[in-house]
Formats: sequence, C-alpha cells, structure tokens
Amino acid sequence: MSFKRNIYLQMKTLEEARDLLFQTFSSLPPLAAETVSVPDAVSRVLAEPVSARISSPNFHLAAMDGLAVKAEITFGAIPGAPKELTIGRDAFYVNTGHVLPENTDAVIMVENVNELDNERVEIEAPAFPWQNIRRVGEDIVATELLFPRNQVITPYCVGALLAGGVFTVSVKAKPNVLIIPTGSELVDWRKLKLEDFEPGQVLETNSYVLGKLIERCGARFKRHSMVVDDIAKIKQTLTAAVKEDYDIVLILGGSSAGSEDFAKTAILDLGKIRVHGVTIMPGKPVVIGTVGNKPVFGIPGYPVSAIIAFEQFVQPLIYAQLGQPDPVRETIDVQPTKKIPSKLGVEEFVRVKLGEVGDRIVATPLPRGAGTITSITEADGIIRIPNHVEGLNDSEIVAAELLRPLPAIRRTIVIVGSHDNSLDVLADHLKATHSELSLSSSHVGSMGGLMAIKRGVCHLAGTHLLDTEDGSYNVSYLKKYLPDTKVKLVHLVQRDQGLIVKDDNPKGIKGIEDLSRKDVSFINRQVG
Amino acid sequence: MSFKRNIYLQMKTLEEARDLLFQTFSSLPPLAAETVSVPDAVSRVLAEPVSARISSPNFHLAAMDGLAVKAEITFGAIPGAPKELTIGRDAFYVNTGHVLPENTDAVIMVENVNELDNERVEIEAPAFPWQNIRRVGEDIVATELLFPRNQVITPYCVGALLAGGVFTVSVKAKPNVLIIPTGSELVDWRKLKLEDFEPGQVLETNSYVLGKLIERCGARFKRHSMVVDDIAKIKQTLTAAVKEDYDIVLILGGSSAGSEDFAKTAILDLGKIRVHGVTIMPGKPVVIGTVGNKPVFGIPGYPVSAIIAFEQFVQPLIYAQLGQPDPVRETIDVQPTKKIPSKLGVEEFVRVKLGEVGDRIVATPLPRGAGTITSITEADGIIRIPNHVEGLNDSEIVAAELLRPLPAIRRTIVIVGSHDNSLDVLADHLKATHSELSLSSSHVGSMGGLMAIKRGVCHLAGTHLLDTEDGSYNVSYLKKYLPDTKVKLVHLVQRDQGLIVKDDNPKGIKGIEDLSRKDVSFINRQVG
Repeated sequence: MSFKRNIYLQMKTLEEARDLLFQTFSSLPPLAAETVSVPDAVSRVLAEPVSARISSPNFHLAAMDGLAVKAEITFGAIPGAPKELTIGRDAFYVNTGHVLPENTDAVIMVENVNELDNERVEIEAPAFPWQNIRRVGEDIVATELLFPRNQVITPYCVGALLAGGVFTVSVKAKPNVLIIPTGSELVDWRKLKLEDFEPGQVLETNSYVLGKLIERCGARFKRHSMVVDDIAKIKQTLTAAVKEDYDIVLILGGSSAGSEDFAKTAILDLGKIRVHGVTIMPGKPVVIGTVGNKPVFGIPGYPVSAIIAFEQFVQPLIYAQLGQPDPVRETIDVQPTKKIPSKLGVEEFVRVKLGEVGDRIVATPLPRGAGTITSITEADGIIRIPNHVEGLNDSEIVAAELLRPLPAIRRTIVIVGSHDNSLDVLADHLKATHSELSLSSSHVGSMGGLMAIKRGVCHLAGTHLLDTEDGSYNVSYLKKYLPDTKVKLVHLVQRDQGLIVKDDNPKGIKGIEDLSRKDVSFINRQVG
Repeated sequence: MSFKRNIYLQMKTLEEARDLLFQTFSSLPPLAAETVSVPDAVSRVLAEPVSARISSPNFHLAAMDGLAVKAEITFGAIPGAPKELTIGRDAFYVNTGHVLPENTDAVIMVENVNELDNERVEIEAPAFPWQNIRRVGEDIVATELLFPRNQVITPYCVGALLAGGVFTVSVKAKPNVLIIPTGSELVDWRKLKLEDFEPGQVLETNSYVLGKLIERCGARFKRHSMVVDDIAKIKQTLTAAVKEDYDIVLILGGSSAGSEDFAKTAILDLGKIRVHGVTIMPGKPVVIGTVGNKPVFGIPGYPVSAIIAFEQFVQPLIYAQLGQPDPVRETIDVQPTKKIPSKLGVEEFVRVKLGEVGDRIVATPLPRGAGTITSITEADGIIRIPNHVEGLNDSEIVAAELLRPLPAIRRTIVIVGSHDNSLDVLADHLKATHSELSLSSSHVGSMGGLMAIKRGVCHLAGTHLLDTEDGSYNVSYLKKYLPDTKVKLVHLVQRDQGLIVKDDNPKGIKGIEDLSRKDVSFINRQVG
C-alpha cells in the first residue's frame, strides 16, 4: 500500500465558509407546512401569522367576588350616610369570573358591603364605572395578531392561542436529515458484545450524538446503516439518498484528505463542492457541497470535530430553514488558569472548565484532541482563539461561550491539582446531596495545585508532596511556597500502592524485589 | 344567594411558603429507576453514577496519516543526512485511526516522508516516542467515573457513554403529575364549535399550559376531565387521585376564598393544609397541602397566577424529586421606561418588555392583570418588586429575570408610542425576513412616544399629532418638544377613519351627521 492522497481544496476561514454556506443555500425550497393541535405545537415554528378568532374575555366579567351594580346609583354614598341597595333589583351577587348582569357596570368588593338582611345591603362609598371588571377583549381582541410567522410556540403561547379561539396552527415541517455513517472500522453498539470488541474497532457514536443535536434544533433525522470505506458503495448510497425526501444529507467520516477518505470524492463526482477544509480546530476536514441541489455535508470522524462541524455549518442551515436565527451562545469574560498555546492561521475551539474564584471567572483548558469526547462533556464553555492569535496568556481576560448557565457556573467548586479517585466519589456525593453545586477538577499535579492556590484560581487543591527530609507530607511545602496565603490543610485520604497479580498469586510475588526475577514480567498501568 | 366565604389561613410570604414547601416534602419516597438505551436517555436524569466499561481508544492508534515506526531507529536523521527506512520492515503505512503495528511507537506525518520507491522512504528529522499517536485510554479509561448520579444526559454525553461501552443507563422515572381542572364555567375547546361559545363560558386552557410546563421540567402529566364546582365531586375526585400512581396532584381553580372555591375545603377535609395564600401577585390564592402523604396543590384560575404559582411551588418540587436544582433565571440590570407602582406587603411579578437602547436595557411594564395571558407571552423578563417596596421610579436601575436570552433582547427594536395595526404587519414581516431581529411595541399614545424618544428609552415612536393651527401632523410637536434631539421623521401610513355599518348600509348612513337621527344607534368600538 502507498498513499494516493486527496488534497484539500483551498482551505477557507470559518467566516468565508459560513458566507459560502448561506450563499449556496439561500434559495432552498421552503419547508412544507403541517397543521397540528395547539398543545402539540409547543417547540414548533409557526408557518403563518396567527390572529385571534374570539376576544378574551368574551364578555364583561366580574374581576372580584362582590356585588355588581350600576355605578351611578352608588354616587353620594359616604360613611355615616350609606346607600341602601336591594339584592336582585339594583345589586347582584357575583363571583370572580361571572358575567356582569345586564345594566351593571361596576363590582363592589364583598369586603365593602354590609349585609342588612337577605335582601338588603348598604355601602359607605361610591363605585366608579368599570371598577373590578374585566372588560371584553381586555386580554385578547378578536382579529388581533397573536403571533407572527416564525414564532416558536412556548407553553405560555398555548394559553394565548387557546384563549383566542385558535385550536390548531400551521407549523413548519421539521427538516428531515439523513445521517450516513461511513468507515470500515466502525461497529454498531446495538449488535456488540463487549467481550468481542477488538483492537482497532471503533464504536460508531457520532450518528447518535448528531441525531440528538438535530432533534434539539427542531429537526428530525434518520440514521442510515453503516457503509464501509468503498467509493462505489458510498456513491450508490448518496445517489439514492438525494432522491428521497431528505432536506439535508450528512456523510459521517471520510471527509479528510487521506487515501480512504471518500466523502469529498463522492460529492465531487455526483455534484458540486463549495468548501473542503476550514481553518478551525477541531473540525477542519469538513466538506460542504450539493448533490442534486440538496445540501450534502462531509462531517469529520473525530467526535469533537463532528460536533463543531455540525454546530458551525449544519445547525445554522437547519435554523435558517426554520426561519430562526442561529442561537448565539452567551459569552462572559474569563481568565485562563494557564497559558493556552495556539497555532497561527487556525481558529481554535478550546473547551474549558469554568468556575468563580473570588471576583473572577477562571477557565481551565481541557484536553485539546479532537478525539476526546470527554473534553466537551466536561466543558462549561468554549474559548475561541482566532486565526491571527498565537495563544493566550494566563493574565489575559478573554471571552468564553457558555455551555452551562452562568448561575450554575457560579456554584461550581474549582479543584486544581493532583487527582485521586476520591474526587470522583466526592463529585457524585455532592450531586446526590447538594444538587445545586458542582465540582470541577483539573489535574496538573500537586505542585501545580499549590501554584493555582497561590494565584487565586481555584478553591481547593489536591496535593501529596512528600518531604524526603523528615517523611512528612505537604506541610513543609505550604510553608515554603505559600508563606503568605491563608490556607486550610485537610487530610482527606491515605493511599496504598501495590502490585496487581494474577488470582492466587501463582508466582508468589511478595514485593518489588521479586520483579527482578527472570520468570516475572512487570507491565506499567495504562496512562491515566 | 349570599356569601358563605372561606377565609385565607394566615398568609405567608413567598420565602416562608417555599421554606414550608421544602420542609413538608423533604422526605418523599425516591422516584423509581428505569433502564433506557443511551440515546433515549437524553434529557433524563441518571439514577446512579455511571463508570466506563471499556477504554477509548481501546488500543494505541495512529492520530495522523503517515508511517508508523519505532522512534529510536529515526534518531539522528537531519536534513542532508536523512535516514532510509524500509516499508514493511521498519516503517508501515497507517491511516488516521488505524491500530499501531506491533513494535512501533511513533507516527511520522506523510508530508514529512520522501518516497524513494515502492519499498524505501527517507526522513530528514527524527520522530520522538508517542508522537501522533492516540494512546489507549487517552479519552476514557475503563472503570473511571463518566457521570455522577443526578447528571442530566445531553447529546454530547451520548458520545461519551457509548464510547465508554455503556449502552443502557438507569434513569429516574419521570414524576407523574395529575391535573384536575375545576370550574362550572369551563368549556373544553376540543369539543367546542366557536359559534356555540356563550357569554360567561371560559375556555379551559390552564391544564394545557401547565401540562407543557410539567413536561419542560422533565416530568409527565395526565389531565383529568373537568370537574364542576361541587365540593362532593371534587373530594371524590381527589380521594381517588391520591390512591393512584401520581407523585403530585394539582387542583386547578377554586383555590381562592370565594363561596365556590372548594380546593382548600377539599384538601382540608381529606388531609392537611400547610399554606393557603401567599403574598405574591399574581399567584396569591395558592394552596399547598397533603392528602394521604401526597403533595396536593390548589392552583389559582387566572392564567398568569396559575403559571407563577406553578413555577414558584410545583416546579421546584418536581426538580427536587429529580435531584435537580430549581433553575435560576439569569438576571440583568434594567431601567423602567415609566414609574411602576406596587402595593406594600405584596411581592409583585411585573412582566416587562426589554430592549437595548443606547447603553441601557430598558424595561416597559406590560398589563398587570393576572387574567392577561398575553402579558406573559409578550414578556421578555420579570421584575420582582419586593413586599417592602411601594413601587419603582423610572430612574431606578433594577434587576429583571430573563425570559428570553440576552443576545435576542439586544436585537430587539423598541417602539413606544401610538399603536397602529401596521406595527403588527411590520413585526410579522421582520420575523419573516430578519429572523434574528424582534420588534417590541408598547402603546402609550403619541405624546408618550415623543417623551420616550426624549428620555432615550426607545428606538422608534409612533405618533399622529395634529397641529390644529395649520392642519399639519407631528412636525410642530417635534420642534416644540424635541428641539435638541436628533430625530428622523418617517411618514409610514395614512389612516382613514370611518363608520362600520350593516351590509348594504340599509339606513343609508353617509356621515357623522346621520348619527343624530332617531333611527340610528351608535356603538363605540370595543376597548383596544
């Protein structure tokens, strides 16, 4: 085997690629409309403006429990010279929400009425016209616009629509996205026994992640069965797909420039390519093209690349089809806890943990690799480092896009330092007993933790520094490195180290000294 | 009929009522757990912590397309004195994601390799061990904690769980809420023909709004058929309900202190009442009690009261059952566009429209009535005026809770002034063509609009002020009231006023003068 390499077409910046995206797909056919009942319309998008069919209230109603009267007959009532009213002739008991009896225009609260007997009451103050009355149309007037087209229906909207006599609405059909996972190394977790999982096999997970992201945008998806790395099969699948009822087609994997990356070739052979390669990281090897006038995307195979490519290119297209703006994530100013290097000419999406320490929100970068899905599940935010910037200093205040709401970030306990499994136990325990708090830990070793305390960028540091002079732990280091910092040292756990041997220890290994024996092999634990 | 009134038990402040709520329900039985497949677990809450079952990657993999080598054989290679490698013996072509061949520990990127022939290549720089390699467990190490209990599963989490070999998870069952709508005036929209809708009938909408709010909290609901205002029937329904499989029961309507308000009596007769009446507006007549140890709420009938009572009391209980913090709405500082009066001793939830004008976020109060559902569908935020405050000045900066994301509020065009239907048309047109923009209009008359411009609290004002001296519109007013303000006057529409008459105008009405005729009745248009 040798390398017949694809090459990237001219790489685009994120901005150029997004401009091309919107240009290319500015005149797609509009989504069909479908009629649904109002409660079922929640989270859907109105295809047409909706006007009220009836007024609410539909009549003048009592807004209080009390006596309905014609206001003018009460004029002149004062304490000491009350007016007497006859029930059933000039005054009528009404409850809140009752229709106002004919020829009345005010309600006197029951608290302000003296009952004389079953038929007569007296009042000591006049009523003014329309007091304590909900007039017809006070909330909604028949024919008025309730909601414009492109409105997303909320639970609250359900109340206004039903009250306005609107029981069904016309909403946009959900964009229909086909996901085609490709790659000969992929295995389907639904058919896998873990004990059969072999080196080099990769669980196909991206289609499920992107499927759920598609649903979150208000669209729907179908997952195609997996296709091996075979250009003929991929082209055949794509040819069939664009003939069907899909609005968007995603080919997962094979979008890069390797010898087995066939997404670009397939799209190029069957249609047109507008973008191949964007100067972002993760997410660089993305393909944007059309086949049979349908939008077709080549989505990179690394999980974080796939997510970022989806969120930067596919998601805005779905929202545009639904007449919605691409949701802008809120940003806040943060301070990195350490230097974040970055390559010139590439826009980096650095996933960070966030927490409030003192009066600052501090950001600790997570692993950068595009293959590290946990770097995004653990992230509270994303710092974007632009193409022309080589990296960030730890004193620099920068903007971070929020992945969790700010109040939740403010309630995060930030731990930096040496890791121990007890932190996982603590994180779980905290969530079980104080659901409003989170624990965020980053692992930089004991000394890194002490320095983070010193710089005021964490609440807590894990440390296990041995003083080889006297065999003590931590205390001498705190005295030396944090002489002026007020810290509390908590002895949390003691760790035992040991050797893991086979059941029943057939070789009778007793300690480190046995490792030098010829019949004994020593294997390091895996990284992490 | 006379008034046999209920009375409120001692009214509680919001804080007291919420404290009582959490005290009363601090030891409800935990929700059952159910096992679901990982993609179906999105938005669900983990019942137990989840650990990885396999490592990801499950083997050392190439992170680049290139040549896998043992690093030490490349040491010493420099430009001018390259090292020659033999394919298949000391170097092996690998694609990204391929398992590293035995006895190799580094990958040289294909760009840095000179092919000499099919069997030999040379390199001009050494490789260092583990370069361009994804090591086993780089992302996930088998046995490590993936997510603690009470974690809400996101689409991203799906990727980490599947990659960690976790295909099903144990999640908390959705709390099951029964909604019982009560009220003899209620009609079911599903069975109504609009032409049969009669004065005093009220469409039952609250159960649908609250049902959707319940779903948004991650719970599920069943809607009971409507029950008339009859204490025996309500008690019978409640007795049956608490025996069934519901976690929470809501009685909608009849929670106030009127003669036909039976929710309190029913709960008191069958169980215990902890709260009746809270000093909030809207939402005051709420009942919190227990029947057969189950939480039972009396929810007020006015739509905005129902929503606020739900969000303040039922929602936090649902979230607590799910082990989630009650989501805190983000707040921002805003400036009211006018004075907002408020009653002492009551915490008011004032619904406001928000928009950014200049460097301030301005807040225009919407109608205050608890019956006005549109006051919450149109709201961008809520200003809470505490019990001890009598009202807000228009110069005061106060906090508003956000109902829409801040970026969307920043893109809102704020119109204050005289209303015209063309504004509805513009709002709809804007949403159709510029989905990222919104139009928010508040109606305070032409002069109010000019004053809002003067005070810098709106972008645009509707005005139609006639100068009776010369018959001109607007210009002389601008000169007089806004002499120093730079404004642009746009002539948008001309309005024709007229009289609406019966088909074919049987009375031959030609103008205002005909209204004095004995055979002609003139009826004002409805308010609004």
